[in-house]
Amino acid sequence: MMGRLICAGLGPGAADLMSLRAARVIEGAREVAYFRKKGRKGMARTIVEGMLHPEAVEHAMEYPVTTELPFASPAYREALALFYDDWADRLAAIARESDVVVLCEGDPFFYGSFMHLHSRLQDRLEIEVIPGITGMSGCWTATGVPITWGDDVLTVLPGTLPEAELARRLQDTDAAVIMKTGRNLPQIRAALETAGRLGDAWLCVRGTMEGQRIAPLAGVDPEDCPYFATVILHGNGRRPSLDDLA
Amino acid sequence: MMGRLICAGLGPGAADLMSLRAARVIEGAREVAYFRKKGRKGMARTIVEGMLHPEAVEHAMEYPVTTELPFASPAYREALALFYDDWADRLAAIARESDVVVLCEGDPFFYGSFMHLHSRLQDRLEIEVIPGITGMSGCWTATGVPITWGDDVLTVLPGTLPEAELARRLQDTDAAVIMKTGRNLPQIRAALETAGRLGDAWLCVRGTMEGQRIAPLAGVDPEDCPYFATVILHGNGRRPSLDDLA
Ligand SMILES: C[S@@+](CC[C@H](N)C(=O)[O-])C[C@H]1O[C@@H](n2cnc3c(N)ncnc32)[C@H](O)[C@@H]1O
Ligand SMILES: C[S@@+](CC[C@H](N)C(=O)[O-])C[C@H]1O[C@@H](n2cnc3c(N)ncnc32)[C@H](O)[C@@H]1O
Repeated sequence: MMGRLICAGLGPGAADLMSLRAARVIEGAREVAYFRKKGRKGMARTIVEGMLHPEAVEHAMEYPVTTELPFASPAYREALALFYDDWADRLAAIARESDVVVLCEGDPFFYGSFMHLHSRLQDRLEIEVIPGITGMSGCWTATGVPITWGDDVLTVLPGTLPEAELARRLQDTDAAVIMKTGRNLPQIRAALETAGRLGDAWLCVRGTMEGQRIAPLAGVDPEDCPYFATVILHGNGRRPSLDDLA
Repeated sequence: MMGRLICAGLGPGAADLMSLRAARVIEGAREVAYFRKKGRKGMARTIVEGMLHPEAVEHAMEYPVTTELPFASPAYREALALFYDDWADRLAAIARESDVVVLCEGDPFFYGSFMHLHSRLQDRLEIEVIPGITGMSGCWTATGVPITWGDDVLTVLPGTLPEAELARRLQDTDAAVIMKTGRNLPQIRAALETAGRLGDAWLCVRGTMEGQRIAPLAGVDPEDCPYFATVILHGNGRRPSLDDLA
């Protein structure tokens, strides 16, 4: 009997924002895997603290250390690919006997690292993905203002894009979310300024988690931005549409 | 003692995709309100079937009937504004004595009708919003393929936008989601064709709910599309970013 690979979306960070389905699967899991940086507990593992079965076997998938190799080098990319290959094989071997639950922050199919396992295993195993509340939903909810209404267009941008492209897209959207902020914040800030939208931007750090911080981006030191940080630009509700009647 | 208004995001449709926090609040609620069309049970109410407290008082907020007034007329818009005004007052009155829980499909701050109550009540009451898994997350998860990875840009478009604008934006994004599909599908289809992206588009009807359907959009009869339908265009993973290491 072959097990399945189940990827459970954990939501934005607060443990009780995970879905009932994810909670049930995590509590019953005997084999649990999650990514983390070496030397860290890891956000996914932190979120499920106290929920795992006493007999659960944990597999911490630790990213290859980056100190010897420049982060964006082909050699680093190759080390990363081998790391994903290796864990794909290991999880596939475990799944010969048992279901394996992979923990993923937010929604797994939305910029999630799980896709590197998914692409390697989708033809070898049965895979179930449980969607989750995205980090951005947690962040815009924390601002207390709707992100979109009426006919607003929402653009989701990785902060890793070139500054000129960021600026162009920020100029041409109603609402925007910028992910992967962290050390990209200086150029994100510059792009918002070019687009004339810096004054409307909010930075949400650790949305829904302990230590959540929300502040107008213009007042934040751009050199000091953690990984779990998202920029939010709210829409103003273009001509409210009348199609909202469920 | 003043009660609060709590808007609980219900997620995309499957009851066990709501968050633990939403479930707890809904199970304990004594005053529960939700929007619906006259003569329907309403999707929000359907999702929580079997969860409400035996003593819960239900407030079905039924949209004003549309048969006498043309849907997009100023008169209809005015009737709708009065309808929201009225319910805002009624919920505020109830909240003088008790918490009131408003049920909202998906994520309340993401194109949700709740914003019409929120904007009217935010200065009069304490409001708590519980985020939810969006309908689009439920839909892209159902396709079995990640929506975005690496440096993909995601554009979320209301299907109510002018066709030319839809086409322009579809041409200029990696991944896209088109909401409010329903009777707008013919022009959405035309816009996808103009943008050269019809062949890659999927239609997800009733994502995660009973009767879920997923099909290549090109093969769907555009004149026959229900309200709970979302178009999904997956990203292909622009130059995978190395910032995914949590
Ligand atoms: C690799 S992406 C993963 C996204 C995740 N799969 C999701 O659905 O939110 C990581 C980025 O998501 C954003 N993020 C995720 N959760 C967050 C939170 N709770 N608060 C702020 N930003 C968050 C940050 O921008 C971070 O750099
Ligand atoms: C007024 S918007 C509300 C969105 C909701 N607040 C959310 O977070 O998903 C309604 C539109 O969402 C989309 N939608 C919501 N749930 C869906 C589902 N389960 N399957 C397909 N489409 C859905 C449809 O396009 C529908 O017309």
